[in-house]
Amino acid sequence: MSHYPPSILNLIKHLARFPGIGEKTAERLAMHILKMSRSDAEQLAHSIMALKESIQLCSMCFALSDSKICKICNDAGRDSTTLCVVEQPGDMASIERSGAFRGLYHILQGVLSPMNNIGPDEIRFRELIERIRSGQVREVVLATSTSVEGEATANFIADRLAQFEVKVTRIASGVPIGGDLKYVDQVTLQRAMESRHAL
Amino acid sequence: MSHYPPSILNLIKHLARFPGIGEKTAERLAMHILKMSRSDAEQLAHSIMALKESIQLCSMCFALSDSKICKICNDAGRDSTTLCVVEQPGDMASIERSGAFRGLYHILQGVLSPMNNIGPDEIRFRELIERIRSGQVREVVLATSTSVEGEATANFIADRLAQFEVKVTRIASGVPIGGDLKYVDQVTLQRAMESRHAL
Repeated sequence: MSHYPPSILNLIKHLARFPGIGEKTAERLAMHILKMSRSDAEQLAHSIMALKESIQLCSMCFALSDSKICKICNDAGRDSTTLCVVEQPGDMASIERSGAFRGLYHILQGVLSPMNNIGPDEIRFRELIERIRSGQVREVVLATSTSVEGEATANFIADRLAQFEVKVTRIASGVPIGGDLKYVDQVTLQRAMESRHAL
Repeated sequence: MSHYPPSILNLIKHLARFPGIGEKTAERLAMHILKMSRSDAEQLAHSIMALKESIQLCSMCFALSDSKICKICNDAGRDSTTLCVVEQPGDMASIERSGAFRGLYHILQGVLSPMNNIGPDEIRFRELIERIRSGQVREVVLATSTSVEGEATANFIADRLAQFEVKVTRIASGVPIGGDLKYVDQVTLQRAMESRHAL
């Protein structure tokens, strides 16, 4: 690596800190930046700074937003009686992409993880309770991930919501559509079997 | 994708243009930038711009350099009678990393490729001839890649250098060290067999 001039090494060092980007890939990306036109490089540098300046968390659902209230929370066409609880903004983006949900979201910004000292106060759980206490919500769809921590978080929230008059549901888990049974892991298959339903 | 605010979409769009980076990876990288501290993001943006401003091609060997003559060409400890000809700066970095070469380099900045209208005038071939004409060089090691175009470029250069009093050599090709024979492709094996040598 030390065979490049310092300014290239510096950029490689920065790029190699990204998740999933090793030194080789960082080197390749830096070479690409070198080949870019000056205006393209300027736009890239600018878009990085613009991101840090303009993005905030929606004060209602904690999604990434460029205004105080995000586009979805502001959308009168969406069903404000149904709330989908997810861990991260990326999860919300995935559900939106699927087009399967027309309600509002609540992004926890994390999962309960006692091992890492993350309890209910470290995620947006209190804000979720406040939203439900305010009265409009009829159903809470728990769409945290199906990891051990995601499941525990879903169970914890379901437990605490029992005191309110809301329906609490959990997204189904089972064999992915289009997936070949022989490639599906044991735990998923067990879950799919347990959750079998009449046709 | 359209479920992110415009400033995130803009950055994702820029990142997805990099080689080997698809939309999903670009999304992940953008999320990482969001989580970075402001000063880290500033440093990243700055290192991109610094690269465009400070990097030039060494006027002797055409390596990437932050000065008119690169560190290697300026290093009196290197053997200026041996010249290693490579296609790209990254190739030079690989050879430097191996520590197997102590001479100087000449980076062609491309390979001959009649299909893409790249002839000797489109790569740094004329400058190579000038360096050899100037007299100090005794051996030219052709280290272009072992692709069809790299081989053709090496043969072309060897042919044109026949008129000068320099030894022209080509890096060896064959089975990679530590490679299992059963995973080596046919052409490499054929080459390795043809180039076999007595022990």
